[in-house]
This record gives sequence, structure tokens and C-alpha cells, in this order.
Amino acid sequence: MSKNRTTLKDIALELGTTITTVSKALKNYPDISKETKKAVIKMAKKMNYEPDMRAVALKKGKSNIIGVIIPEVVHFFFSNVLEGIIKNAEEKGYKIIITTSHNISKQEKKHVRFLFNKKVDGIIVSLANETKSVKHFDILKEYDIPIVMFDKVSDTFQCNKVNIDDKSSAYKATEHLIKKGCKKIAHIRGPKHPLNSIARFEGYRSALEDNDIALNPNMVMECKDVTLKEGYDFTLELLNSDDKPDGIFAVTDQIGVGAIQAAQSLGIKIPEELKIIGFSDSQVAQIIRPSLTTIHQPNYEIGETAIRMLIEEIELREAHGDSDIDFRQIILDTYLIEREST
Amino acid sequence: MSKNRTTLKDIALELGTTITTVSKALKNYPDISKETKKAVIKMAKKMNYEPDMRAVALKKGKSNIIGVIIPEVVHFFFSNVLEGIIKNAEEKGYKIIITTSHNISKQEKKHVRFLFNKKVDGIIVSLANETKSVKHFDILKEYDIPIVMFDKVSDTFQCNKVNIDDKSSAYKATEHLIKKGCKKIAHIRGPKHPLNSIARFEGYRSALEDNDIALNPNMVMECKDVTLKEGYDFTLELLNSDDKPDGIFAVTDQIGVGAIQAAQSLGIKIPEELKIIGFSDSQVAQIIRPSLTTIHQPNYEIGETAIRMLIEEIELREAHGDSDIDFRQIILDTYLIEREST
Repeated sequence: MSKNRTTLKDIALELGTTITTVSKALKNYPDISKETKKAVIKMAKKMNYEPDMRAVALKKGKSNIIGVIIPEVVHFFFSNVLEGIIKNAEEKGYKIIITTSHNISKQEKKHVRFLFNKKVDGIIVSLANETKSVKHFDILKEYDIPIVMFDKVSDTFQCNKVNIDDKSSAYKATEHLIKKGCKKIAHIRGPKHPLNSIARFEGYRSALEDNDIALNPNMVMECKDVTLKEGYDFTLELLNSDDKPDGIFAVTDQIGVGAIQAAQSLGIKIPEELKIIGFSDSQVAQIIRPSLTTIHQPNYEIGETAIRMLIEEIELREAHGDSDIDFRQIILDTYLIEREST
Repeated sequence: MSKNRTTLKDIALELGTTITTVSKALKNYPDISKETKKAVIKMAKKMNYEPDMRAVALKKGKSNIIGVIIPEVVHFFFSNVLEGIIKNAEEKGYKIIITTSHNISKQEKKHVRFLFNKKVDGIIVSLANETKSVKHFDILKEYDIPIVMFDKVSDTFQCNKVNIDDKSSAYKATEHLIKKGCKKIAHIRGPKHPLNSIARFEGYRSALEDNDIALNPNMVMECKDVTLKEGYDFTLELLNSDDKPDGIFAVTDQIGVGAIQAAQSLGIKIPEELKIIGFSDSQVAQIIRPSLTTIHQPNYEIGETAIRMLIEEIELREAHGDSDIDFRQIILDTYLIEREST
């Protein structure tokens, strides 16, 4: 049916120009040259281009709804970010449609489609662990729907982003273990793809290197789902090997809590025989005994910043049409909280 | 402008009948008598009734969006219920707009309005602690938009409800302390209004009564926001009084964790000198030492059941118009998990 409908993108590809240029040319923007306009209009006619009525509707009515795509809701980090998003959105008269990818790329794609069809004013997303290509977000670009990425972001996609400096935070965590006297530091890391789990690994590696400690690949364990149980099991494996670690940098507090429980099950003393540091500063880190040293992450502020940037972009586009936006990446500060586990 | 528009409710009030009857009469339903139809049509004319175009639009198009109103997102109970709602909604092709009341009635009212205007297919709600009157939900009834209430429900509002048996669960918790030898049992209870905090108090009172233990009003503390800090402070107050409790029934695990920390700060031994039981079975209850005995609540299942009932009602109404629905209250089971704190 509408499978072969010509899009702005098709015209842009055909002419070797950008979607923005084609869009502006068709709307008779003054910053596009007469020749370009002529070429675009000619090509549009040739390709039987018709403006998408959904897009026209999109432009006319504002929905005051913002879509959020996150891996999961029952998660210390995401629920706190979500609170920051919802509270600040509601204050500005926006509501949130929340969708969860469960770290499955296909789900994420479906959600983008649904939110697009629902005419959301913008989208905030933390990518699924599985997601490599972010092509499914292109349709939002095509229709000038703003996107803000946080936490698990794409380095190739042009949009506003909010994050912490995962690499330097991980460096700080690893360096803390070194300063406390650890020589054999294991890292229970996140999955292979997400940029933030790669960055935390890089921070770990770089702290070891700067302190002339050789990285032992047997001491790097890679989680799949980043659950407490994985933290427990990997720690048992590490502690039962011939070459035991004297320090563990856990990629999240859940992993850190699992590590503490595993060490305790073997009668290993924390912090005397084994020092453990987590990442995120969740409530369990405070409550477990020994309490868990961790990196404090400003979760609520991440949500607050993401929604603020998104609403700014929505309102900028409303006021000035699809003008070019200077995308920014905001990096929020973290700090180390020393507790009993180190 | 449209302030004086006649509604179905106005006609119903004028005739001393129900909105459903008026609605059915105007739609010429066969189960309404001729005389009633005549009377309704006459009154509608007299009052210059015109069908609301929004309502007509509502009937025509399905939004596939469901509104959720809960007090907060960063909360063990609500985030788990939400996960149950979202996952099951997404499987059936619905998305969720999530709004938070922060336990403020006025916010709740605003959200109902917004969701109504957004033409949601249905609403799931846990009432704000503050909410006494539920009149702001009447507009949904008027337009046949299904509602499911869970956790903090209204006993006067006719709709489907999902809950646990708070009273018998609290009875179980208090009885457990009695069986373990406690004679002076304090209760750190929830706020005054929510039915579930009243029911938990009733369960506590009734267990004491059945075991010939007099209720000591000085041993009942009433939380405002149900935070860990309130649990901590009330426990200090109780333990510093002349008449110390030997058991505490905490209305939630957060309160229970605060109670454990307060007792520990005074060097009081748990469970030897003081036994503590919580309610909800959150992760902190497992992780704190001594681990916290608690009532397991099927949070995810509450969300799952709520969305299932809602979608059933939406689809029933789609198939049969605004036919009468037999509203049900589903009560899900809880059980006691004994841990170190008792």
C-alpha cells in the first residue's frame, strides 16, 4: 500500500543532500538557494512525493506527551531517573508514556514506532543492551521529533545526551582499591555492547596501567543481565580459583552486594582479606553489612537534566521551526563514598 | 463558555435515575422501558442536552493507551506493580501513560482530567494518601471509561479492584510476634486515611484482642510519609520510653529497617530483646542483618491482575457497548517469611 511512498529521505538520497535541506526547500525557507529549491521540487514531483498527513498533523497539534524508552522499571537507577523525568515533566505540563525494552532491540524498535504514531512531542531513551544499530530512531529525526539519550547512549547518533563520566568514575573506583593496598583487582563488568559498561572497563584498565598493575584477563568477568546472582556466582568463581583477587570492582551495587554475600559464604573477611567497591549508591549499599563503598551517581538529576534538555528543544523547534540545533552532551559529576567494604 | 453544558448526570439527577439509564435511554437500548426513554428524551430536550463531541470521538477511536496514577515511582511496591502493568499491557498492544500524585489529591484530580482529555482507554489507580472524596473519577464513569483500583482503593467507588487482605495479613504478622513470646507489641502504622493502613491497624488490634493482650495506645505510632527515617525515629521514641515494647509490627519493610537500625544504635539485641516484623518483602528485608521477617506481598501479580481486569473490561465494553459490568474485588494471597529479626 504505502510501502513505496516517497519520503524526504528518498529525495535527499537521490539528490545527495540532507533531509533538512529537502524539508526546508519544500517549505520555501529563505536560507535555501533558489537552485536547490528548484532541484528539490523537480525531484519531488518526479518521485511523486506527497507530504505525509501524519507529519502535517504532528506539526499542527502538540500532544504534550513525551515518550520514554528504558530497559526496565524495577531497577534502582532507572526508577530514580524516571522520578526525575516525571516530576519535572509534570511541572511543565507534560505527561510521560513509559515503555520498556527489557534490553531487547526489537522491543525498542516497536516502541519507537508506537510513540511516533502517538505523536509524542519528544523521546527520552536509554538504549537496550542488545542495541547496536540505532537506525530505528531515524524516523524521529526525519519528522523533527527531539530525542535525548541518557546512560546507554549511541556515539554515532546526533542528539542531546546526558551522562556521567563512566570511565573516570571507574578509574576513581579502581584507584581507591589500589590506594587501599589491593594488588590483584578483579572487575565484574557489564555486558559487551553498552558504551557505559565498556567505559567502566576502560576506566578499570587505565587505573591498573597507570599504577603498573598488569591486567589479568581471568579476573574480568562479564555479566549478561547484571543481577545480584551473577555477582554472587562470579565472586565464588574468583575466590575459588588458584589466583584469588584481593579487591573487586563491581559494575553496580547489585553485583557488589552479591560479591559481599559470596565472600561471607566462604568465611572471607571484608575488608581485611577482600575489598569490594560498587557503583550507583543504591539503598542496599547502605544497608548491607559491611556497608558497600560505592560511586554515587546523580540518578534523579540525570532524569531532570534529560527532560529539561528535551523540553528546551521541543520549545525551540516550536518557536523557530526545524532550525539547526547544537547538540550537547552534559556530563554530571559522581563521587566516591567510602564505607566498610574497603 | 461550555460551563453550563447539560450532562447525562444533570439529566439523571433531574429524573432521579442513574447515568447509565439515561445513557442507555438516549441510545435506545432494548433493556430500557418505553416510558423511561420518553421521559429521558423529553428532559434532554428541555435541558438542551447535546452529546459531547469529545465523548463521540472517544467512542470512535481507541487510543490503545492506558493511564496509571500512583503516588510515586521510586518505591519498591509501586515500581514492581508498575512492571507487572507495563509488561502485560505491552504484550496486549497497550502503552502506559504514568502519572504520579505524590499523595496529593489535587495532583490526582489534574491527572484524571489530563488522561480523560487524552482519550485513554482505561485507568489504573492507587489513591493518594490524602484523597477522601473520589468524585473526580465520576467523569470517567460518565463516559464509560473503565477504572481499576489497587492497593489504596475507595470502598464507595464502584469499579474493579485488586488487593491483598491487609487485615488478615496484619493479623498473621502480629500473631507471629505473639507466638514468639512478645507481650508488648508496638505498631508503627501508616497514615490515617488510606484503607490499607486502617486495615493493617485493624488486623493488629484484632490479633491482640484474640490473644487477650490489651492495646496500649502509646504503642501505636502513626507515620506521615512512611519513610525509613520515621521508622527509625518512632522506634527510638518507643525504646526510650518507660514502657518498652518487646515486639514491633512495622507497616512496611522500610519502617522495619529503620526500626532495626534504631534498636542497634541503642545496643538492643534483635531478636533476643526485641522482635521486629515488616510488610512487603522488599530486597532490603533480605539484605539487612539481622534479616527482616516480613509479609510477602505479590506486587508484580497485583499489577498483572489489575491490567488484565482493565483490558477485559475495555474489550467487553467495545464488544457490547456500555453494558453493565459485574465489578469484582480480587484478593491476592500473602504469606509470612520468617527471618532472623524474630
